[in-house]
Amino acid sequence: VDAFFDEGQAHAARFGAEYRALWTALRSAGEGGRRLRPALVCDAYAAFGGTEPAVAERVGEAVELLHTAFVVHDDVIDHDERRRGRLNVSGIFAHRAADAGARPAAATSYGQAAGILAGDLALVGAIALLTTAPTDARVGARLVALVHEAVRTSAAGELDDVHLGLGTRVPTLDETLAVAAHKTAAYSFALPLQAGALAAGASQEDLAVVGLVGHRLGTAFQLCDDLLGVFGDEQVTGKSTVSDLREGKMTALIAWAARTSAWPAVAAHLGDPALSAAQAATLRSLLEGCGARAAVERLVEQHVHAARDLARTVGLDAVVDRVTALATTDAGRAA
Amino acid sequence: VDAFFDEGQAHAARFGAEYRALWTALRSAGEGGRRLRPALVCDAYAAFGGTEPAVAERVGEAVELLHTAFVVHDDVIDHDERRRGRLNVSGIFAHRAADAGARPAAATSYGQAAGILAGDLALVGAIALLTTAPTDARVGARLVALVHEAVRTSAAGELDDVHLGLGTRVPTLDETLAVAAHKTAAYSFALPLQAGALAAGASQEDLAVVGLVGHRLGTAFQLCDDLLGVFGDEQVTGKSTVSDLREGKMTALIAWAARTSAWPAVAAHLGDPALSAAQAATLRSLLEGCGARAAVERLVEQHVHAARDLARTVGLDAVVDRVTALATTDAGRAA
Repeated sequence: VDAFFDEGQAHAARFGAEYRALWTALRSAGEGGRRLRPALVCDAYAAFGGTEPAVAERVGEAVELLHTAFVVHDDVIDHDERRRGRLNVSGIFAHRAADAGARPAAATSYGQAAGILAGDLALVGAIALLTTAPTDARVGARLVALVHEAVRTSAAGELDDVHLGLGTRVPTLDETLAVAAHKTAAYSFALPLQAGALAAGASQEDLAVVGLVGHRLGTAFQLCDDLLGVFGDEQVTGKSTVSDLREGKMTALIAWAARTSAWPAVAAHLGDPALSAAQAATLRSLLEGCGARAAVERLVEQHVHAARDLARTVGLDAVVDRVTALATTDAGRAA
Repeated sequence: VDAFFDEGQAHAARFGAEYRALWTALRSAGEGGRRLRPALVCDAYAAFGGTEPAVAERVGEAVELLHTAFVVHDDVIDHDERRRGRLNVSGIFAHRAADAGARPAAATSYGQAAGILAGDLALVGAIALLTTAPTDARVGARLVALVHEAVRTSAAGELDDVHLGLGTRVPTLDETLAVAAHKTAAYSFALPLQAGALAAGASQEDLAVVGLVGHRLGTAFQLCDDLLGVFGDEQVTGKSTVSDLREGKMTALIAWAARTSAWPAVAAHLGDPALSAAQAATLRSLLEGCGARAAVERLVEQHVHAARDLARTVGLDAVVDRVTALATTDAGRAA
């Protein structure tokens, strides 16, 4: 992705200080991740016999840039000004405005504007990277169509996720699984695996199977995320085990608990922004006692199992094993 | 663009009610405009000898969809929930959330989320439309590069515009002209003219001239907008002549006035959200008396004149005449 950012920054040099700072912030947003998605592209490309690493790399960069776009827009949607302990694009620009003398509300709005625009730049950049990928034009067009489909599906998942976050009702377990599949699995797992396979010349039938592998794997990954967000080891994962509970995040755990007799006790504290450590511990016991934890762990196993069975038929077993190791352990998530 | 929306809505049918409503709202956001940009694409295509109307139409649709994306994101950035007297995407979704029982702040956030996601869908859709345009692959790639460049330039203009809107300082006249050129002229005028010319096989040299025509024409168009926003005939244009003054919008008129002795009197009332009709009339007299109105009218003439001179060299005179008639008259703006 270096070439993309170098070119963007060269273009930005012709404009003012704000726009140049936007590119610096966007570049920094794209750095420091685990680059799981490019690895999935390369793995699938190799598994389907691809022989030009430059193709898989370019496609991987495009998918990673798409991820950056979603992360930046997601932070605007969630009103977050920090990510991984640092200011994100919106946070950096809110501070710039405040330092220039803007009032707090105006500074926040400026941060949001910067986040929206930076995400737009990454989104368009991701597609543009694909159109110049060193593949034949027909494959290039199909790659764009694949990304287009993934953008649509993840928009549907993101919208439903925000809708559930309104807290006006408790979702069903199926609804939370659909959000995991649409918001996370589609673009973070199915897309990179399918894009790698497609670039290597996989058949339409194999692509469909690869998509299902990604769907299963990504859903399992998101469910693990939900589990670690409540029951994980903060010291190892670096992820708070209180904030999901304080936010009242409508995960599969919560959807399960809502069907049990523990629900009134859970609902009494869930989503309390001032939730204490002791109250969080009580919530954890309730979610464990009512069977929610075990049920979601079982769902993870089922999805991983299904992913593995499907993966075997298209030679992607090793990929599933590696991702599963990453997804299901505290240490893997911290990596 | 019908095919794009039909396909998007068919895809959305597999998802929940919220996402289906997002496509309905996005489609409605794309309707009812004057379709100035597709007309510019077709004019330039014809002027450079293009013979396949389907190509110009597809490129025009892509540019119009890009415009829809920018409008929708712009409304999120400006916290607007209405456009042309109707609820926009954000407004529709804020109401959906409120009707479902969400609190006002959560409903507003949901509206913003919907606007961001809808704009993303239109943005990606615009590029995808180009990649399937019935042109040869090399032209297709150059069209994508052209749109990519326009997205970058307009993001720079939009960011600077929001930055100036913070009201922490008064911009120079050159800064307001740069915003007009980057935010408006680049994607609404230079892009459609260049894309039409490129699709018809124009040379690199001619494309550069066409870009300058669009730059001049679009800047003139924006300056006219600024003039009509203060001195226009509301009855004819349908555009308020008070809201720019109430917002304290940092236009070329204001930048000019800031260098004159009338400035303290202008600054005393500019940006007052409760500005009365009488105070607005006083501001208008001040902006007229200090020479700001005449100066901006002169700038419009200069830009139109330069556009016409350039256009003559590439056979685009008729286009400039038509746009100028649209841009500079109250009646034209209302059309």
